[in-house]
Amino acid sequence: MAQNRQFKLVARPVGNIKRSDFDFVTAPVPEPGPGQVLVEVQYLSLDPAMRGWMNDVRSYVPPVKLGEVMRALGAGRVVASNDPKLAVGDSVQGLTGVQTHALADAKAFTKIDPNLAPLPRWLGALGMPGITAYFGLLEVGAPKPGETVVVSGAAGAVGAIVGQIAKIKGCRAVGIAGGPDKCRYLVEELGFDAAVDYKHEDVYKALKERAAPGGIDVYFDNVGGEILETALAQLKLRARVVICGAISQYNNTGGVSGLKNYLSLLVNRARMEGFVVTDYMTRAGEAVGAIARFIAEGKLKAREDIVEGIEHFPEALERLFKGENFGKLVLAV
Amino acid sequence: MAQNRQFKLVARPVGNIKRSDFDFVTAPVPEPGPGQVLVEVQYLSLDPAMRGWMNDVRSYVPPVKLGEVMRALGAGRVVASNDPKLAVGDSVQGLTGVQTHALADAKAFTKIDPNLAPLPRWLGALGMPGITAYFGLLEVGAPKPGETVVVSGAAGAVGAIVGQIAKIKGCRAVGIAGGPDKCRYLVEELGFDAAVDYKHEDVYKALKERAAPGGIDVYFDNVGGEILETALAQLKLRARVVICGAISQYNNTGGVSGLKNYLSLLVNRARMEGFVVTDYMTRAGEAVGAIARFIAEGKLKAREDIVEGIEHFPEALERLFKGENFGKLVLAV
Repeated sequence: MAQNRQFKLVARPVGNIKRSDFDFVTAPVPEPGPGQVLVEVQYLSLDPAMRGWMNDVRSYVPPVKLGEVMRALGAGRVVASNDPKLAVGDSVQGLTGVQTHALADAKAFTKIDPNLAPLPRWLGALGMPGITAYFGLLEVGAPKPGETVVVSGAAGAVGAIVGQIAKIKGCRAVGIAGGPDKCRYLVEELGFDAAVDYKHEDVYKALKERAAPGGIDVYFDNVGGEILETALAQLKLRARVVICGAISQYNNTGGVSGLKNYLSLLVNRARMEGFVVTDYMTRAGEAVGAIARFIAEGKLKAREDIVEGIEHFPEALERLFKGENFGKLVLAV
Repeated sequence: MAQNRQFKLVARPVGNIKRSDFDFVTAPVPEPGPGQVLVEVQYLSLDPAMRGWMNDVRSYVPPVKLGEVMRALGAGRVVASNDPKLAVGDSVQGLTGVQTHALADAKAFTKIDPNLAPLPRWLGALGMPGITAYFGLLEVGAPKPGETVVVSGAAGAVGAIVGQIAKIKGCRAVGIAGGPDKCRYLVEELGFDAAVDYKHEDVYKALKERAAPGGIDVYFDNVGGEILETALAQLKLRARVVICGAISQYNNTGGVSGLKNYLSLLVNRARMEGFVVTDYMTRAGEAVGAIARFIAEGKLKAREDIVEGIEHFPEALERLFKGENFGKLVLAV
């Protein structure tokens, strides 16, 4: 008889995530009740936001409770259905949790077309990261043609799409990423105008002298910390700062590093605004449709970084915080 | 023969302003050239922004140069005119500088009506602080009826008007000020719903338990530092933070205190935006007209704190940074 393998959160991490924060357990595969479907999970999305969900603090979603299956977005195949909207064999995505089998009401899942794009892409460019990049940049950043858009975490799932959409909209796109391989990829493969290697360059100097010499109109922040400080110091008049994430701070036990340069907002009459993609889910189709079209037209490239084996979940997740992933990080179950 | 008494900036202050940062000198009163007028300065406005103008750093206006008369807004009487738009005896306001006699092109001054309000009020509620409060609150803060508006420096020139306009617009108005006298004044005289005494209360607790128990929709910041941190920690969903000033930080030689709670912007999809009144000067009449009407209708009270004698300029200015002023601080020349 098939077994459900699950990662349950059993301790709230202090600093970096440890394997001992989870129990890797086996349970019987459940049977769907009325209106429910059972999904065999094939791919799990590994996201920076997962670190926040493990903390017992007020946020835009409640924390994962101790003893619960760790929350995660996933994609897979319906293997049993008690709802006419989904049939056995359909591919779906949704909040499956970190487990091999997910049981939920049919409405908790969204049907996806595996012929349009492979499943991992439905967790990346055509999933939450793509929707995040699309609305965060266009609705909150609101770039105008000719403006300079700088994005951090630029080789990551969200950042790579932000920069490419900025280019499509007629902006100068500048990416900040770690290491020469990622920077080369941004410029040579994705068509960014410039890239800054924060691991080997003085970011302030590289932006000022080479990458964004006229200053920054839109800064899309995925990382927080020193790079955000540096960007604030180079804002142009009426600049917009999109706060999408702060991966450099999530494991920080000493508290978030304080923004000393916030008065640049005053001097430049600039705006800094927080953004959470879930607010835009009713309009998700708009973003997914546009990105799918950009991909089909050859204007946008997506890349997934796939790690094999659900048993490696904690270590795979850790790669995000070390900046080791290159493109959207996905766990093949 | 009449002499012009002037304060010239001769040293860039480090930390607090010292008298030795200025030379108090005497020069001949100049004669107006073609298109110029000579104004006898009667009142000088003392503003927190003056501290920033003394630093040699990029900002929204160039710094005052060493050896120049210190920049200041003032109000006075035309005593000689070579321009038909202004006659001897007219009352005017403008950037007079810290001196007894100001010479400039007629267009540098705005005619004011001393019968409508006394001259010091034209430097306060009907001047730059009033215009700042009006547009900063209504255009950047954009409060809706029923929302909670919290303002720091609430007994100061800008803050007192922010809170009263918030009340007029149907909001709950909460002021943060230093000392029981100021707090009593806000609630009993100006009609604020609540006041928090930051010198004697735990601001976080007072806001949470008593003054703004449901959280903050609009926070209008004049002070920066710990009070801004505390407000960020209590934002409601889609809150707006107006960065108007940061008086607690202007004399800080150790650098601006960093904002650790900025991720509250993300969690709450909130917006923090810098504001400089000079961007709204073409619409100044709209604000002055509205405030004059509120005063005439008894809905808004203005208060000036007048110090006598131009020779006391450095010490009078220092009172601002010690929080000793109560209402708009004006120097009677």
